[in-house]
Amino acid sequence: MEEKKQEEVSEQEIIDQPNEDETTENSQAEVVEEDSELDQLREEKEEIHNRLLRLQADYDNFRRRTQKEKEADRKYKAQSLVEELIPVLDNFERALQVEVDGESAQNFASGMKMVYDQFQAALDKEGVEEIPAQGEVFDPHLHQAVMQVEDDNYESNVVVEQLQKGYRLNDRVIRPAMVKVNQ
Amino acid sequence: MEEKKQEEVSEQEIIDQPNEDETTENSQAEVVEEDSELDQLREEKEEIHNRLLRLQADYDNFRRRTQKEKEADRKYKAQSLVEELIPVLDNFERALQVEVDGESAQNFASGMKMVYDQFQAALDKEGVEEIPAQGEVFDPHLHQAVMQVEDDNYESNVVVEQLQKGYRLNDRVIRPAMVKVNQ
Repeated sequence: MEEKKQEEVSEQEIIDQPNEDETTENSQAEVVEEDSELDQLREEKEEIHNRLLRLQADYDNFRRRTQKEKEADRKYKAQSLVEELIPVLDNFERALQVEVDGESAQNFASGMKMVYDQFQAALDKEGVEEIPAQGEVFDPHLHQAVMQVEDDNYESNVVVEQLQKGYRLNDRVIRPAMVKVNQ
Repeated sequence: MEEKKQEEVSEQEIIDQPNEDETTENSQAEVVEEDSELDQLREEKEEIHNRLLRLQADYDNFRRRTQKEKEADRKYKAQSLVEELIPVLDNFERALQVEVDGESAQNFASGMKMVYDQFQAALDKEGVEEIPAQGEVFDPHLHQAVMQVEDDNYESNVVVEQLQKGYRLNDRVIRPAMVKVNQ
């Protein structure tokens, strides 16, 4: 900015000079013409230079924004699949709770428990984790209160029971835990 | 940096001019000097203009590349999780093949089959699909031949049997199908 001011002053000096110049009139006219061309060129140069600076700033901003977006995309890239898999996990857990009798059925069930564990490990590896609920202080960002109770065994505003598990993908809540809260 | 230096030189020239300015000859000298200043300015302007064009081209390229990368990232974003889930799917299928007797066990098994179907539907929605194998012409991009057989029921170079399912995420092969191929 300051630099620009100096330049303007210099230009002013240049414009003023020919008037003081009283030797040869032709040369003087020529000088005046060249001066105005000089001025124009300086202006054009400055304008292009400003465009260059603006473009550079735009480019830098774009690069920064792109970088941030990329990082966020990477962190939450599995989100849509995780959202689909959470209900599968719910049903898997529900199905595993059914009691079975007999040895073959027990073997079948323990095979399924292993599949469940592997399923959970895969989600875990991608950054999926359960949101702690029971016994925690109620947090509206993490917990969805669907019932209020009065329970002397718990402090006020504490989660008494979890009705449905909640999940986070890295630090993003994918589904809040559905809970009962103490009044 | 260099540019600034050039500018400083120009300013110095301007300041020096009035001193030389005494006769016609001097005026002519002035014209010559202004010509060289014009030339210099033109050069500078052109140089900045070229920088502007190069920067614009860089920016455009960067934008295009970023756009392409984004599309690819979106298309294959679930890949790492899918890679983890494919072995879960394998084991799930294997576990479901175990025979069970008794009503409670049958109910348990059919509950698990429903979970399996939901699991597969979730993967399906994300663009995960099985690679066709048995009866297909052997394709080294899609199939991994672990055995060669001679079977008159099949044409030459056709997949006779699939030993392990292969999967694609959209058009990308995540795991080729493991197959027996006819000679």
